[in-house]
Amino acid sequence: MTTGTTGTIGTTGTGEAVTEEAVASLRGAADPRLRKLLSGLIRHLHDFVRETRLTQEEWEKAIGFLTATGQTCTDTRQEFILLSDVLGLSMLVETMNGDRAPGATESTVLGPFHLTESPVRRLGDDIDLVGGGEPCVVSGQVLSRDGTALPGAVLDVWQADAEGYYDVQQPDLQPAGNGRGLFTADAEGRFWFRTCVPAPYPIPTDGPVGALLRATGRHPYRPAHIHFIATADGHTPVTTHIFVAGSDYLDSDAVFAVKQSLVQEFTETDDPALAREFGVSNPFRHACFDLVLERAS
Amino acid sequence: MTTGTTGTIGTTGTGEAVTEEAVASLRGAADPRLRKLLSGLIRHLHDFVRETRLTQEEWEKAIGFLTATGQTCTDTRQEFILLSDVLGLSMLVETMNGDRAPGATESTVLGPFHLTESPVRRLGDDIDLVGGGEPCVVSGQVLSRDGTALPGAVLDVWQADAEGYYDVQQPDLQPAGNGRGLFTADAEGRFWFRTCVPAPYPIPTDGPVGALLRATGRHPYRPAHIHFIATADGHTPVTTHIFVAGSDYLDSDAVFAVKQSLVQEFTETDDPALAREFGVSNPFRHACFDLVLERAS
Ligand SMILES: [Fe+2]
Ligand SMILES: [Fe+2]
Repeated sequence: MTTGTTGTIGTTGTGEAVTEEAVASLRGAADPRLRKLLSGLIRHLHDFVRETRLTQEEWEKAIGFLTATGQTCTDTRQEFILLSDVLGLSMLVETMNGDRAPGATESTVLGPFHLTESPVRRLGDDIDLVGGGEPCVVSGQVLSRDGTALPGAVLDVWQADAEGYYDVQQPDLQPAGNGRGLFTADAEGRFWFRTCVPAPYPIPTDGPVGALLRATGRHPYRPAHIHFIATADGHTPVTTHIFVAGSDYLDSDAVFAVKQSLVQEFTETDDPALAREFGVSNPFRHACFDLVLERAS
Repeated sequence: MTTGTTGTIGTTGTGEAVTEEAVASLRGAADPRLRKLLSGLIRHLHDFVRETRLTQEEWEKAIGFLTATGQTCTDTRQEFILLSDVLGLSMLVETMNGDRAPGATESTVLGPFHLTESPVRRLGDDIDLVGGGEPCVVSGQVLSRDGTALPGAVLDVWQADAEGYYDVQQPDLQPAGNGRGLFTADAEGRFWFRTCVPAPYPIPTDGPVGALLRATGRHPYRPAHIHFIATADGHTPVTTHIFVAGSDYLDSDAVFAVKQSLVQEFTETDDPALAREFGVSNPFRHACFDLVLERAS
């Protein structure tokens, strides 16, 4: 092997000189954080290429895959988030940044379906605009970690329907906003709304990410869940799910997003008076849990 | 920290459990090479996230950047190759796979402009269909490493014009196939064609990769070069460039692709007889070099 004299001239067989050149090219970056991120990314990707001895043909396939992934994205579909999800990256970023003090509601991934604004709804509204699923009441209280109620806390809620589809996946079958709602908690921080019990669902498999799952022998399913983003004045917002206890796939979520503390019973309830109060037919399923936020530091 | 019991449940603050889950999810991959590549990619990307403590906001920016990169790709533009190029990844893959025995022509990156088929041309043809640049003759011989001439070797040639643009970048100004040619060497493996001396050029800066270069204080220029893919029966094809000696940016190529052995003199030539023979006006520039291929093993 020979050593380079100037620039990348004389790169050796292991390509270390290319890596050093690429990292050095960032020396003029105005933002030190951007420089650090890109340097780290270059070093890790280059090490990956060296360790696997990535071939030209494999590189071409990777370029084609990434291009197709970008071109699958639309206003209502985010295939790159899906890719990040199935590689465990989204959940890792959540885990790194979502450290919560004991007692605070844990976070999990945003997922690729938070693409439209949830319609503003009133407490007690039914977000199942189509019907046909198992009637369900979701209720609870938004609290600060010291137990103080958080009046006026806002809950952004979205979920798949009883067939496992989000509204944006079925624009011809579901009205926009089906399964979505933006709720404001009452003066005691309480929230309640009606919906149907969501079904487990496959993440979209008709794009490049679906092909990747098939090639690796992985199923595309997620356990049944309802997404929440809870925000309240003076507190750190939390992006999370509530998983339906007993759902299939709780131990093999395609996007690795299950945390035990987020699994909640959707209790079979036979209580005509309570059903009347919530405005659902009896019997119904009832999920009741609190969302606990940390005070912003 | 607590240890998970099943699945990703109970992931710890450093997210190691998510990484192990994601790698383990590949256990059913039919192709062991694919499993190895994806495992390695997951481990390196997860380590990158851990080391840099990537924030949610930075992750969102990365998703947006990758999406925009995919959506910038068209039939005549490959922004993901450009991204790979400016991160030094393309050159590294070339370097890992392009090890050549001493004396064989070294390889370098394909670049993002090999998007259309080069028109078949005859030896001596002028690939500068527009004119206006400095007239130039490119000639030489395609040889096996033992010195044997390779009659019928095929050269796919493409270059920017004297202003630094490829035909596909200026469909309204340049005819398709300008600066491109597919040549077959003669019975002695010899090739010759006419062109203009290419100019250094900026890689396209109006897309996400251009924004990345600006954010990192990097210039987008490549030293002047002509691309070649040389193929011959029984030999390993080589994808390479010939760089114009004395060009600006030879020591700071935006895509790290310069190798000293690929820099060639484009000699100022004042020789009316030779000019007449080649069919160019006198004086002219003349680049004369051999392309040496390795026998396929
Ligand atoms: Fe979901
Ligand atoms: Fe080029």
